[in-house]
Amino acid sequence: MGKERAGNYFEDFRLGMKIRHATPRTLTEGDRSLYIGLTGSRAVLGTAETNAQQLGFERRPLEDLLVFNTAFGKTVPDISLNAVANLGYADVRFIADVYPGDTLAVTSEVIGLKENSNRKSGVVYVRSTAENQHGSEVLTWIRWVMVHKRDHSAACTAPVVPAMDAVVPLERLPRRRYTMGVRDITAMTGVTDMWDDYAIGERIDHPGAMTLNDSDHSIATRLYQNTARTHFNGFAMAAAGGRRLVYGGHVISLCKALAYDGFENSLSIIAINGGSHVNPTFAGDTIACATMVLDKIEWGDSQVGGLRLRMIGIKDASAASIVFPDVGQSRQAHPSNVVLDLDYTIVIPRKL
Amino acid sequence: MGKERAGNYFEDFRLGMKIRHATPRTLTEGDRSLYIGLTGSRAVLGTAETNAQQLGFERRPLEDLLVFNTAFGKTVPDISLNAVANLGYADVRFIADVYPGDTLAVTSEVIGLKENSNRKSGVVYVRSTAENQHGSEVLTWIRWVMVHKRDHSAACTAPVVPAMDAVVPLERLPRRRYTMGVRDITAMTGVTDMWDDYAIGERIDHPGAMTLNDSDHSIATRLYQNTARTHFNGFAMAAAGGRRLVYGGHVISLCKALAYDGFENSLSIIAINGGSHVNPTFAGDTIACATMVLDKIEWGDSQVGGLRLRMIGIKDASAASIVFPDVGQSRQAHPSNVVLDLDYTIVIPRKL
Amino acid sequence: MGKERAGNYFEDFRLGMKIRHATPRTLTEGDRSLYIGLTGSRAVLGTAETNAQQLGFERRPLEDLLVFNTAFGKTVPDISLNAVANLGYADVRFIADVYPGDTLAVTSEVIGLKENSNRKSGVVYVRSTAENQHGSEVLTWIRWVMVHKRDHSAACTAPVVPAMDAVVPLERLPRRRYTMGVRDITAMTGVTDMWDDYAIGERIDHPGAMTLNDSDHSIATRLYQNTARTHFNGFAMAAAGGRRLVYGGHVISLCKALAYDGFENSLSIIAINGGSHVNPTFAGDTIACATMVLDKIEWGDSQVGGLRLRMIGIKDASAASIVFPDVGQSRQAHPSNVVLDLDYTIVIPRKL
Repeated sequence: MGKERAGNYFEDFRLGMKIRHATPRTLTEGDRSLYIGLTGSRAVLGTAETNAQQLGFERRPLEDLLVFNTAFGKTVPDISLNAVANLGYADVRFIADVYPGDTLAVTSEVIGLKENSNRKSGVVYVRSTAENQHGSEVLTWIRWVMVHKRDHSAACTAPVVPAMDAVVPLERLPRRRYTMGVRDITAMTGVTDMWDDYAIGERIDHPGAMTLNDSDHSIATRLYQNTARTHFNGFAMAAAGGRRLVYGGHVISLCKALAYDGFENSLSIIAINGGSHVNPTFAGDTIACATMVLDKIEWGDSQVGGLRLRMIGIKDASAASIVFPDVGQSRQAHPSNVVLDLDYTIVIPRKL
Repeated sequence: MGKERAGNYFEDFRLGMKIRHATPRTLTEGDRSLYIGLTGSRAVLGTAETNAQQLGFERRPLEDLLVFNTAFGKTVPDISLNAVANLGYADVRFIADVYPGDTLAVTSEVIGLKENSNRKSGVVYVRSTAENQHGSEVLTWIRWVMVHKRDHSAACTAPVVPAMDAVVPLERLPRRRYTMGVRDITAMTGVTDMWDDYAIGERIDHPGAMTLNDSDHSIATRLYQNTARTHFNGFAMAAAGGRRLVYGGHVISLCKALAYDGFENSLSIIAINGGSHVNPTFAGDTIACATMVLDKIEWGDSQVGGLRLRMIGIKDASAASIVFPDVGQSRQAHPSNVVLDLDYTIVIPRKL
Repeated sequence: MGKERAGNYFEDFRLGMKIRHATPRTLTEGDRSLYIGLTGSRAVLGTAETNAQQLGFERRPLEDLLVFNTAFGKTVPDISLNAVANLGYADVRFIADVYPGDTLAVTSEVIGLKENSNRKSGVVYVRSTAENQHGSEVLTWIRWVMVHKRDHSAACTAPVVPAMDAVVPLERLPRRRYTMGVRDITAMTGVTDMWDDYAIGERIDHPGAMTLNDSDHSIATRLYQNTARTHFNGFAMAAAGGRRLVYGGHVISLCKALAYDGFENSLSIIAINGGSHVNPTFAGDTIACATMVLDKIEWGDSQVGGLRLRMIGIKDASAASIVFPDVGQSRQAHPSNVVLDLDYTIVIPRKL
């Protein structure tokens, strides 16, 4: 067996192929601290043990996006080492909380393949799933990514594009259990806005902004054991006339941290319905973001409700300057300073 | 209720107003590791469990300034989001050790208000206090900060400036309990200097120096969940002809870490009597510092004594080049390369 | 006693002199997280508790090079604060695993001294040893370093250069105990290559590359409480026409992390036979590396074998461009873009 570890090219993928990614990862309080240091997250559930317990949790869960980025990183050496671009996400569901000490094991299945007409590359669709050490699913997601062919003349099978929902349907949204105690979050944040106080179509411009540094995003991306060369090899990027790209998952984390202001009482992300890294982000860019409430989800008997949100991240411009395209429009229909267009769903306490 | 989260302006503060800051924070070994990585601290009590136990502690306490910066960060969204400048500290008392797993909850009370004569801003004086999860005070401090008015024409009440001691008086200095074991610290550090070996007026030029990087101070400031825009929004700072400012608390931490050499046997900071961030610090600046012994404090029956110290930090110059102004002079009476003038009190073992 | 803390100069060292370095250090999960964030390490034993237990370990040990760099850092204030250059390593043996919560105490003995003919400096040879809190040796190493003289005219004793093996001999290689379970590592990494699959003379070009940032190496070096001024004082380095140097141990860690690809099933480093930081590394450099298998070590009855490896690190060039000099040649016989030439020995499972 050779030891080149060149990663998979488009023609190496087969429909139905299952990959067990190397290697499982245990997350700890050390990872939480770094996550806070790298993103400035103030999410209540991740900030204090006392808060988490008062809200009905056994312990402080880890941030949803720390879990997502770690699990995502695991898939890179097998799926996207030779990627041209990460094209999109769908059906990302955060099924269960992850706690310090938990170990994530990640597997993927190839669910779609479509060669590009230029025959130089193709799009690979994968469903990936992270399980904890008890064998319980904690996170699952679809992503599709454009991958180079090793040999442009290699024959490829007929295209298969999986059916994907534009929004995670209500019946598939994870239902985590919450106690009545979750309403105490308003005393912790000092903010009274609950599910009932948000309106469909309401827009919130988050007041913060964050300038990215090369070391920040490098540390974050390494913490996730994500090996995509485009984030780390400045020499090769410069030789190709470019610069190191910031890992898109770090941009999502930064925007989510900025979106604390306006959604202080958010408990958990339960789904990412879809998303696009519209334009690349580089060190030196200052990220701001705004959120629009797309939908409100009711579960009737629950002490929480869901908010489907559209969060748009922009660089070197104010949150107020962000234009929300019509929902029907493509996520690519943005000016060149928009870096993120994410459609996701959170859970937040309801009034009695 | 709106969701702008624009922070408080000068006219929003009322004398006697009490604020419970969002949200409590649990500190862990992960935060300690980051603190060491960001500052290079070698403080004995924070470096080894075995040391801490031999010195009579149950466990390794967290660094005093990690606690201070974390607690301070909590106050920013309510007190200084719209600040022009952080003007000073007084009566900062480190009442009890904080251990990994402890949760800090921080409250503030407005104890003084004074509109500036130009009516565009005013000075807000607050007393802030951090309690642990058992409801015990661990840290208390006064700071005053110049805050913009939202509406320059807003009417303000008559000025109230609280009485503040220039130095924390002996009877209010925290008395932490130490065992006879604290003297073993000299075997750990290999340095024999104890309380008895320092003289009032003695000056120590610390040999190290530390060049600041944007990522360092950004990570530190985010770790403290400090949201002050001036540290993070490089785009807005550049638009105003400036650059991201380094959070002053990070500069204090760096100087304290450099001051290890010369005060190796220091156990704890018990007070900050006063201090000023004389000039701004930016990434790329190299910080050095020198300390003068201002006073020696005796408690008679104790195995420890106190040293009141004046630590001056300078940028892009040697520690030897620092000029200590006369004690009577204003802390602002410094050349433009002085960045910190801090008056604080440590506890250090005495000889038998 | 003065409080200058100027460090030792060449004439301060005496043959046989023993130094107990300040101060012991407890390593934790926080340090592990930072190590992963700073290096991108994916070493299996350090990545998941479940892996470590399945492989027969009680818990996840800390990375060997985190232990090495921490222990090394402890020696700097006494040995190399006034160093001109770190000249080499020999007989570095990783005797036992170190776990989160363990405390390292480091001592050194001067085993050789040789004044340079220009009488301005000399070479100091030290044997350093790290013990854990149970008094068990976990790591021992020789290094030699060129140190300035304080007084060029100071008389020095006759030169003594210790005998050093070019390679740690078989009988002195640490024998750690492994269970049959270690072979399960191939299921974790998805890579089947075991000891049997490597051939003497085989060369592996590692596919990754890593651009260094000033903040990365500063945080790493501070995490190790390494106080060498050359890594931190950008002002003094610029005044002397230079820049902050990257700590060589960080370069070793980065190369080792890149060498995961090709040696995925490596369990532990058991020895560094020798090594040289051939040229300095600076922020902005992109590091790549290649490895050659120099020797294979068999212990007959063991489930593991040893591989003696030569890892060469290069900056701003591809791994493929690295030229391996003949084994007889000096480690200095490299072009100016080679930064590391390390000869070390790992343990890796064998086939049944």
